[in-house]
Amino acid sequence: MNIVVMKFGGTSVAGTEKINNIAKIVKSEFKNNRLIVVLSAMAGETNKLQSYLDEFKAQNSIESDLVLTSGEQVTIGLLSAALNNIGVRSLPLLGWQVPILTDENYEKAKILQIDKKRIKEYFADYDVIVLAGFQGVNLSGRITSLGRGGSDTTAVAIASAIDAERCDIYTDVDGVFTTDPNIEPNAKKIPKLSYEEMLEMASTGAKVLHTRSVELAMKNNLTLQVLSSLTKKNGTFIIDEKELIEKEIVSGVSYSRNEAKVTISGIPDKPGISAKIFGLMTENNINVDMIVQNISQDGVSANITFTINQKDHDLTKSVIEKSKSTLNYKSLLLDKKVAKVSVIGMGMMSQAGVAEKMFKTLAKNVINILAISTSEIKISVLIDEKHTNIAVKSLHEVYNL
Amino acid sequence: MNIVVMKFGGTSVAGTEKINNIAKIVKSEFKNNRLIVVLSAMAGETNKLQSYLDEFKAQNSIESDLVLTSGEQVTIGLLSAALNNIGVRSLPLLGWQVPILTDENYEKAKILQIDKKRIKEYFADYDVIVLAGFQGVNLSGRITSLGRGGSDTTAVAIASAIDAERCDIYTDVDGVFTTDPNIEPNAKKIPKLSYEEMLEMASTGAKVLHTRSVELAMKNNLTLQVLSSLTKKNGTFIIDEKELIEKEIVSGVSYSRNEAKVTISGIPDKPGISAKIFGLMTENNINVDMIVQNISQDGVSANITFTINQKDHDLTKSVIEKSKSTLNYKSLLLDKKVAKVSVIGMGMMSQAGVAEKMFKTLAKNVINILAISTSEIKISVLIDEKHTNIAVKSLHEVYNL
Repeated sequence: MNIVVMKFGGTSVAGTEKINNIAKIVKSEFKNNRLIVVLSAMAGETNKLQSYLDEFKAQNSIESDLVLTSGEQVTIGLLSAALNNIGVRSLPLLGWQVPILTDENYEKAKILQIDKKRIKEYFADYDVIVLAGFQGVNLSGRITSLGRGGSDTTAVAIASAIDAERCDIYTDVDGVFTTDPNIEPNAKKIPKLSYEEMLEMASTGAKVLHTRSVELAMKNNLTLQVLSSLTKKNGTFIIDEKELIEKEIVSGVSYSRNEAKVTISGIPDKPGISAKIFGLMTENNINVDMIVQNISQDGVSANITFTINQKDHDLTKSVIEKSKSTLNYKSLLLDKKVAKVSVIGMGMMSQAGVAEKMFKTLAKNVINILAISTSEIKISVLIDEKHTNIAVKSLHEVYNL
Repeated sequence: MNIVVMKFGGTSVAGTEKINNIAKIVKSEFKNNRLIVVLSAMAGETNKLQSYLDEFKAQNSIESDLVLTSGEQVTIGLLSAALNNIGVRSLPLLGWQVPILTDENYEKAKILQIDKKRIKEYFADYDVIVLAGFQGVNLSGRITSLGRGGSDTTAVAIASAIDAERCDIYTDVDGVFTTDPNIEPNAKKIPKLSYEEMLEMASTGAKVLHTRSVELAMKNNLTLQVLSSLTKKNGTFIIDEKELIEKEIVSGVSYSRNEAKVTISGIPDKPGISAKIFGLMTENNINVDMIVQNISQDGVSANITFTINQKDHDLTKSVIEKSKSTLNYKSLLLDKKVAKVSVIGMGMMSQAGVAEKMFKTLAKNVINILAISTSEIKISVLIDEKHTNIAVKSLHEVYNL
């Protein structure tokens, strides 16, 4: 039995007309395959529920997760009705009905186990299972939510659990692009990408998939496809790098404008000082991204530069200022107007000239590099935010994307 | 352990401010008692969900019940958060989590069993259980809904199952009134009523409680209280007639304007003709209320008059007209402009003069009686709809209510 998992997000299920459209897509996919369709709540619904919760400052997360997971109950019921109307035998299932067993962490539960045997039994009576994304049930019998990107995670987890042939993530774009088409109209859809490249693209700004679901797919060697619910084209397949035969050196250029830069200067150059700074950040739940450390010119003190999410700007400032006496630094400088631009490609760091080409191109466009961070398959640079578009466009061109 | 069940309907939970108000009422009730609070969905929510379902003409009721029961998930989560915020340890529970086990009938499931032991165990850790009304789970593990008045049914069923001291049904009025205060400003709140009287009042037009929940309370000898969530006054207690010591002969006057009258004249006066007519009605799902049959003046044919719900007027007309040859009647007359007015009181039919007083009062006001129907504790008359207000007001006065 071939099983394909299909996932549709909140904008694809926002309204009865759109749900009828999904029913048609599902019916066309249902030929030799049995299908599991994973849905989010209608776009806007989760925000409405969250605004209720905010009014109560709900601290006990049993309540939060109960309220937040109610939206998918509506969309799976409606799609299942639409499918039965057009002759596709469909069963709607909530997380606890599968069951999708999670740990006890509310608001960001991890999936522990999915009952594969029971799911396959359903296919004796039904062609399609319509499954609520984002939700599970813990051993205490309470409903849990999987946190951000939760419906993607549900889709990938159930596809892995039942050895699905593929997990198709439907969006409003045709796939993963070489860069943001809003900035560079020549951006092209990438036919195939490795998990690692997709992870780097997601974590450096491409919003099409959540990193957690890509990691889970990679771990289970599950083929993902990102495709549009509006066209009938093939999307971008995300697969194991060993299956990628012909391969561009650079796959794409991504960017993020949500960065803020923090520079702490004149810190005593002693062991343990970085640990102290980043310990402070962890304590206050501030995520740190790029980190650059240099000895300063005087040879006895150091400068540390790192990036954070813009929303943490004020918190970071007050946290570090409060610890001035412990950290014993000379000056603190924060800059909200920065952007991170990254080029991503499998094995590109072992290829001569890739990094050089990036730095030359930025120099030619008189863009100053504030910090650099590299991995095996990615080079990220921090630049002044106002140069973002020209940096993305010129890099997209120089790597022939 | 004293347990009191409190039920709040859709208008009481429509909005975060109202939910905070309920939290205060619950906290004030929580002194010596453990509490189970049963909630409906926010007013308007169920209608919105039903309109989605109508667009899909959902025929498979698994889907309908799944969609319709999502609203309570939101309200119980929010009230539980509000209670925890003000120091009342609260746990929200859905129907399947209790579990409230029902039969396999979707859209109008009957409760089979409630796990009493498990509910009492929760009170080791929590002061209050906030329970979703209107919903249960069947043996197949699917969510079921209890149909109209479902939250009242949930409240009474759980109160009966755990031998609660009392079940309080909160509404937007102070209790059950001697008649509709919108028609008769002198209408008074009735302090105590028997189950039977409440049943007659509910089925003759008083909308404060659904008959199904009253029947269930009567069967379990559970004390009900109907009271307002806006005032702190005692409401109307609905109890066993044996506990009613001092008792008015007539408790109240109720009315319904949703009636239509059907008169079939000149039917052959043979056995089986009524069975044929009312068999037709049953086949077409038309509820028949009052039935009056007389021999006509010629002594060989009969006239039958009965009442139906106004919404069934057109269907009834076409059904009977199609069967003219089988029924062999002379004429068919339907009248939409009728109302049913009833006086209700325990044992009033054994009391001389109650019925006479009713007929005299109507005659004095030149109101023609189109049909009469009586039970042990009720007299209902059918009159022209335009006389409803004056009939209700004059009867309310003549029985000293």
